[in-house]
Amino acid sequence: MSDIVDAAKRLLVGRPKRSESLGRTLLPKRVALPVFASDALSSVAYAPDEILLTLSLAGVAALAFSPWVGLVVVVVLLIVVASYRQNVRAYPSGGGDYEVATTNLGRTAGIGVASALLVDYVLTVAVSISAAAHYASAAVPGLRDHEVVAAVVAVSVLTLINLRGVRESGTAFAVPTYCYMAIIGALVVTGAVRYFAGNLPQAASSGYELVGEAAFDQGLVGIGGAFLLARAFASGCAALTGVEAISNGVPAFRKPKSRNAATTLLLLGTISSTMIISILLLAQATGVRFAEDPHSQLQVNGEPVSTDYVQIPVIGQLAEAVFSGFPPAFYAVSAVTGLILVLAANTAFNGFPVLGSILGRDGYLPRQLHTRGDRLAFSNGIVTLAIAAIVLIVAFDASTTRLIQLYIVGVFVSFTLSQLGMLRHWTRELRTEPNPTVRSRMKRSRVVNGIGFGFTGTVLIIVLVTKFTHGAWITLLAMGVLFVLMRGIRKHYDRVREELALDDISAARALPSRVHAVVLVSKVHKPTMRALAYARAARPNVIEAVTVGVDREDIDGLVAEWETLDLPVPLRILDSPYREITRPVLKYVRSVRRESPRDLVIVYIPEYVVGHWWEQLLHNQSALRLKGSLLFTPGVVVASVPWQLASSRGHTGLEDDTFMHGRRI
Amino acid sequence: MSDIVDAAKRLLVGRPKRSESLGRTLLPKRVALPVFASDALSSVAYAPDEILLTLSLAGVAALAFSPWVGLVVVVVLLIVVASYRQNVRAYPSGGGDYEVATTNLGRTAGIGVASALLVDYVLTVAVSISAAAHYASAAVPGLRDHEVVAAVVAVSVLTLINLRGVRESGTAFAVPTYCYMAIIGALVVTGAVRYFAGNLPQAASSGYELVGEAAFDQGLVGIGGAFLLARAFASGCAALTGVEAISNGVPAFRKPKSRNAATTLLLLGTISSTMIISILLLAQATGVRFAEDPHSQLQVNGEPVSTDYVQIPVIGQLAEAVFSGFPPAFYAVSAVTGLILVLAANTAFNGFPVLGSILGRDGYLPRQLHTRGDRLAFSNGIVTLAIAAIVLIVAFDASTTRLIQLYIVGVFVSFTLSQLGMLRHWTRELRTEPNPTVRSRMKRSRVVNGIGFGFTGTVLIIVLVTKFTHGAWITLLAMGVLFVLMRGIRKHYDRVREELALDDISAARALPSRVHAVVLVSKVHKPTMRALAYARAARPNVIEAVTVGVDREDIDGLVAEWETLDLPVPLRILDSPYREITRPVLKYVRSVRRESPRDLVIVYIPEYVVGHWWEQLLHNQSALRLKGSLLFTPGVVVASVPWQLASSRGHTGLEDDTFMHGRRI
Repeated sequence: MSDIVDAAKRLLVGRPKRSESLGRTLLPKRVALPVFASDALSSVAYAPDEILLTLSLAGVAALAFSPWVGLVVVVVLLIVVASYRQNVRAYPSGGGDYEVATTNLGRTAGIGVASALLVDYVLTVAVSISAAAHYASAAVPGLRDHEVVAAVVAVSVLTLINLRGVRESGTAFAVPTYCYMAIIGALVVTGAVRYFAGNLPQAASSGYELVGEAAFDQGLVGIGGAFLLARAFASGCAALTGVEAISNGVPAFRKPKSRNAATTLLLLGTISSTMIISILLLAQATGVRFAEDPHSQLQVNGEPVSTDYVQIPVIGQLAEAVFSGFPPAFYAVSAVTGLILVLAANTAFNGFPVLGSILGRDGYLPRQLHTRGDRLAFSNGIVTLAIAAIVLIVAFDASTTRLIQLYIVGVFVSFTLSQLGMLRHWTRELRTEPNPTVRSRMKRSRVVNGIGFGFTGTVLIIVLVTKFTHGAWITLLAMGVLFVLMRGIRKHYDRVREELALDDISAARALPSRVHAVVLVSKVHKPTMRALAYARAARPNVIEAVTVGVDREDIDGLVAEWETLDLPVPLRILDSPYREITRPVLKYVRSVRRESPRDLVIVYIPEYVVGHWWEQLLHNQSALRLKGSLLFTPGVVVASVPWQLASSRGHTGLEDDTFMHGRRI
Repeated sequence: MSDIVDAAKRLLVGRPKRSESLGRTLLPKRVALPVFASDALSSVAYAPDEILLTLSLAGVAALAFSPWVGLVVVVVLLIVVASYRQNVRAYPSGGGDYEVATTNLGRTAGIGVASALLVDYVLTVAVSISAAAHYASAAVPGLRDHEVVAAVVAVSVLTLINLRGVRESGTAFAVPTYCYMAIIGALVVTGAVRYFAGNLPQAASSGYELVGEAAFDQGLVGIGGAFLLARAFASGCAALTGVEAISNGVPAFRKPKSRNAATTLLLLGTISSTMIISILLLAQATGVRFAEDPHSQLQVNGEPVSTDYVQIPVIGQLAEAVFSGFPPAFYAVSAVTGLILVLAANTAFNGFPVLGSILGRDGYLPRQLHTRGDRLAFSNGIVTLAIAAIVLIVAFDASTTRLIQLYIVGVFVSFTLSQLGMLRHWTRELRTEPNPTVRSRMKRSRVVNGIGFGFTGTVLIIVLVTKFTHGAWITLLAMGVLFVLMRGIRKHYDRVREELALDDISAARALPSRVHAVVLVSKVHKPTMRALAYARAARPNVIEAVTVGVDREDIDGLVAEWETLDLPVPLRILDSPYREITRPVLKYVRSVRRESPRDLVIVYIPEYVVGHWWEQLLHNQSALRLKGSLLFTPGVVVASVPWQLASSRGHTGLEDDTFMHGRRI
């Protein structure tokens, strides 16, 4: 049984890797770009949709603003890229925003950034996979209304791939990312050529009338109009997520790490910007209609569209129009886009466990997050991320539009704090730097980060104002909970460390004067004999066997057998008026301690070792409770003397080594 | 925190009881009757309803058969009572049917009876409480459509009462049972007086037309009619459950136990029979209509009754009619009947844990079922029963009619096997008994049990044939699963006992030649110092400290500190290429064992003892996994050296003593 589990695990997760092979899992730029950039690039698959969808609330005329909204998004994107190029140079160790904030703004800001990032990694997975599920169901009618199941399956597959380790991920993900760039490039170029040639067809949805909300019957005017524009912009800022992934992932780059990371960032910014603007322009040229609620907003001759109308994502609609007459192109675009979204989620699977591990090392999360699994990947973090994302997907019914309201807040909290940290960083460095060349470069960097801080801070306020009631409050709440939790964990570890610190060396060196061995006995059988033999071998000053008198008959039998065997250890029978095992033993051990407080009491407990979990239910229940209770008594050592039952043979006790740290009984 | 839990537990469950006080919890007849008879008496609250409901399928004319069906039920009831009077005299030890079957028919029949009884106890709770919930909702309109919740709450309350112990149950339950007998007696007498005085009013439902199933438009004729009569009889046999409760409960009676139990049985049979017949006759006289699906079967002028018509149970309808003009009587009858049904469920709470404990003692169920909780009640059995009953209630939507299809099968399996066992018992006894007076009494008993076997066997076949597809298959399946499970558990315990038996005394006396102590070290702090001191105090032949080299820096720091402190124990650093803790330690310990196989290796593990469960998540994870794995290695003793953190102070390790045996970490 366990062999099968082991074999299955090896098949799914692969062979363990040695520490030394960690160096070989470093990524060259051509692999790092797809691994880290897929997040930012893939948001092109839903960010334009959200801009159009939000503007649609003000009717068809408002759509004319979409390229301008896109342009503002691109400006902010490029500013953020420029800022982060300073970050990766100054902090190449991979702590990313967390490290920048902690170093320059203190621990509180650090944990703030960390909680924001953790929440956002989870949302990256949830949003990307939900969007992927919708691309899949647009192309494969059989998947319609099963998006949640498809999304959960996708997250599970990603989890397994990541448990195999980072290297395979890189190679496996490079090809589809480049395919995606190529196919979006082909779409944009073909579209542009046909537009200028004057034969660009209209999108299938361009024939529908678009009905806005009653509040916007005058179009985008007044405060309401400005607010809607701001909301469209805030949604479009989803395109900016993923930039920070690179700053957290610098150590995974080949040397020179910082330079390579900075170059990758620039590449990413350029490609991403081009894609967003091109898609929004093409959408306008082909008259794409994309509504939040298509069944009430889209109409034909004043009648709503039929209930089985399925709204295809914008890139899909563009592919249909641009490659009209060649249907396979639509399926290729849908497939590649769906795949790239899955890969985007993978970025979070790279970033989350690293951050969790750093937080575990710093004592803000349980230390076991810092322990590596046997595939060099941080198994615990990967599994935690997967579970949280699945919960979100199920709770929000895999709706990209609803999930996107929760998104971005975290990223911009960390953007803003990180840029503020960088400002402080340069100011501090400038205080001690004498070299004028270096000083002028630092001043330039400080200006870049200052502009970055101004912009990201403004966007953060816009996002909070426009999205708070739409779901951003959930994100803030989750961040707050994580913040309090991490502070509490750190405080706990600090307190324990203080409590355990060696204050008085001589006291620590004092030895107990005598050893009093107590062997617990219930029956005369092999495990008891072994426990007696082991206890005697340790040559204690006092040794006695102890049993609890629950059943008169059993005790009489035990005493008779003890006498027949003429065992060289006296047997003591403890009275148990309430027919319990634990309390009388505890009471006796405490009385021994009270009589000679400087003695050490070693309690030997014979224990069955079983091969199946259900056997555990049939044995050891009393022994386990007793062990747990005895540990609360100072001056007592609990020694388990195992007896390996036949069913345990072939087991090594190592079966549950990877994944979450389950507790072996 | 734990103080509050403890105080709450004491408040709900009461103070612990000493073993000696067990004698004082014995029941006099006047208390034993209500405790054990409430099951059988309470079935009068639903058995007549089920007879009428089944006959109604053949239309209003078929209702004329109801007193005759009731009469057959009563005949079988009296035969069963007569048979069980023989049982309690021959087997006064409380094993009941299980003991009778095991002793006379062998272990397989014994487990068969046991699984039948266990299933039936659960159904007793589920059926009685569901019926009670319907009485409650008939009287209290606010409870309508919340029967499931009400039933689950009632089971939970019963569970708590029973965890307090059997004595309070007896006293608390005597008064309502006698009230019930009095109020049903008053109902029957008043009804009879008014009937013969010629002024008995008709029931409210008598005005409805009753529509039978199309198959029975000719009334009760042919095979279909006979089958329906048989089904009505089978449902009516629900009145027989509870008789075996007394035979299982003989030890709880005052002396002379057997005679008192036999007298109680006779009382019970007489009262129960009178009630059933009286109620069915009264129902006929008042024209009560009771249908399986009132909203299609009951009509007014050819139109179905309105959807908010609530069908009141038969006893309630009778109370309305007989005590017409005095509405409080209806509420009193409903309240007392509902209460008695809850008390009936209590019979199962008395019987199930006792049987579970006997099966635990005999090794058919996990041994912990044999351990008593601190209130002399078998806490584990009580909680198991409550959970199973709640599952059934929720699964069957608290529908008495649907649950009753599952009921009775188990009882009659155990009736039949038990009577067959008694036949064998008398035949065997007669073989050796010389005294002619005793012989003739034995022969008379044998005839009674023979008749009992014939009747109960026939009823079992009728029940199986008429109810198999209606739900009895579920019961049979559950019985089968329990049967296989119990056989498997016993086989496992037998195999283990054989494996552990002392075969070679001299080998068991051989001592390991030397002791090799390994102290696991991760940091230099108080817990490590204590583990070192304790290990040294035990004066092993070899002692060494061992650490796992996961992180270069940490190890260098540890070594430096070790040298500074000049500790008298050598420190060994184990290589960990895969950054694990468990595997390198395991490998090292095995290599020590391989080099000197006759040595004993004691591994000292410093362990934190924490006061809160969540602290456990932050500590000890590596230690726990390591301990579990080391136990699989022969020749190794795992010694936990506890360090009590400040948060553990005030904890005794005994907080989770009652209820299920949770495992303390």
